[in-house]
Amino acid sequence: MLTKEHIAETYKTIQDEICKGLEELDGGAKFEEELWEREGGGGGRTRIIQQGNVLEKGGVNFSAVHGKLPEVIKKSFGVDEDDFFATGVSIVIHPNNPWVPIIHMNIRYFELNEKIRWFGGGIDLTPHYVEEGDAKFFHQMMKNVCDKHHPSFYSDFKTWADNYFYIKHREETRGIGGVFYDKLTPEKTGLSNEQIFDFSCDLGRTFLPTYKELVDRNRNRTFTEKEKQWQLLRRGRYVEFNLVYDAGTRFGLETNGRIESILMSLPSTANWAYDFKAAAGSKEAETLGLLKKDINWTL
Amino acid sequence: MLTKEHIAETYKTIQDEICKGLEELDGGAKFEEELWEREGGGGGRTRIIQQGNVLEKGGVNFSAVHGKLPEVIKKSFGVDEDDFFATGVSIVIHPNNPWVPIIHMNIRYFELNEKIRWFGGGIDLTPHYVEEGDAKFFHQMMKNVCDKHHPSFYSDFKTWADNYFYIKHREETRGIGGVFYDKLTPEKTGLSNEQIFDFSCDLGRTFLPTYKELVDRNRNRTFTEKEKQWQLLRRGRYVEFNLVYDAGTRFGLETNGRIESILMSLPSTANWAYDFKAAAGSKEAETLGLLKKDINWTL
Repeated sequence: MLTKEHIAETYKTIQDEICKGLEELDGGAKFEEELWEREGGGGGRTRIIQQGNVLEKGGVNFSAVHGKLPEVIKKSFGVDEDDFFATGVSIVIHPNNPWVPIIHMNIRYFELNEKIRWFGGGIDLTPHYVEEGDAKFFHQMMKNVCDKHHPSFYSDFKTWADNYFYIKHREETRGIGGVFYDKLTPEKTGLSNEQIFDFSCDLGRTFLPTYKELVDRNRNRTFTEKEKQWQLLRRGRYVEFNLVYDAGTRFGLETNGRIESILMSLPSTANWAYDFKAAAGSKEAETLGLLKKDINWTL
Repeated sequence: MLTKEHIAETYKTIQDEICKGLEELDGGAKFEEELWEREGGGGGRTRIIQQGNVLEKGGVNFSAVHGKLPEVIKKSFGVDEDDFFATGVSIVIHPNNPWVPIIHMNIRYFELNEKIRWFGGGIDLTPHYVEEGDAKFFHQMMKNVCDKHHPSFYSDFKTWADNYFYIKHREETRGIGGVFYDKLTPEKTGLSNEQIFDFSCDLGRTFLPTYKELVDRNRNRTFTEKEKQWQLLRRGRYVEFNLVYDAGTRFGLETNGRIESILMSLPSTANWAYDFKAAAGSKEAETLGLLKKDINWTL
């Protein structure tokens, strides 16, 4: 029997593995940890790394919380049960170098009255400049881990990510997508809860080798002031997505979550320019042309 | 008879007056104008000033749009009519110098099937550092213009601003408030539509002398790098308010408004720091202590 305690402990171990790996990768900064407790029950370990060699600002958070579900959330879920338990690992990394992409990962488990059990999660990549080789590598890594568990996971969750990580008012995707899934159950997948859980752990453990490769490919590349400015504008879009659309962020803001843990996803600096237009044929214009849904990167 | 054409023309004139005054005040940068048309009907004049002596980024926008109200908005208004007309002037100014406050002004008029007629608007001030003398001056200017039109406007609209310009997840006000009102009608105010319109014009014309005084008091003050960093953090909060709570911004994003005009309110640069704590007794801590509702600045 797969217990919530086992899920939480395993996710905690994954947080440890990732923090260790990211510190080695960075070679400079160390994570600072903050333990916190939630008034309604449970708590978490927020870990933040700042001003590293590679990582300008990153958070790798674990939490395991429980309590009574607010009425408004019960309604939106269409359920009557209200004793909830939720645990997960959540990551956002903003690198210094504009050639190194922003990355986000989340694996989570949700339980209601020990009756309803859901898994959610995903990894998505937001390159400041989209480079075909990196994009293909990233999506292939996502496909590899999905294919190990279910023949349609990659295709289904890739489409889900395209639709989820979409900045509607800009008519552009946040980045090149990745995989995203929510409320997975045995009924929906044909897998047991144990198997879905195994998938979520595998996905979590794919994060480090994937990001390490992308960092190593790009960390020593030089960049111009213009490229830095473009990075800051792209971060502005990241802020827009997170504050306007991201379900986890908005859920956290509306339910009095721990603000500093929720908003660790925001970059240390972001810019906005009025009506910026990328010059035709520029690298910036090329990237904008690739911030679209339904690009197949694993052909 | 007060026509919508007259309201729009007068608001347009107020936009002209304010742009002229802000250019004189800045003494360096000039507004750039962009005329745009709305697919469903109407259009606007977006005017942006950037990289001035005082004004780092500011927008003074006029629009007059009409068309059919989306179903979701009709519902939220609780009305059956759907031929709408809306006109207004909207301003946000982000100054270079952290001692000069951010300011926002909006006056607007909304009509449904020439039957329902509503006025809305407000001015609110967001000092990076709250200074008592400036705060008192600002609120006294707001009180003076309100008192000319209605004995309870200042008190009512000051409270409304305290509640509206509130960053719930931070448990702090955006700044020191000001005045805010929405859906004003003769029934609610005892004034005629002409009188409410006159009030909105007077409020619009209070903007320039009010901001000019605050700029002149502070524009030549020197500042440290630490004070600049604090300004950037406060701008991060401004971004949070606008993207998460501001009704006009969210309305614009949800109804396919002109994105660049809507998001001109965002600063050119903003920062986020994980779990920033102001040192006890510092100017920053003092300011945080004054970002509260229900402070009476006109005693």
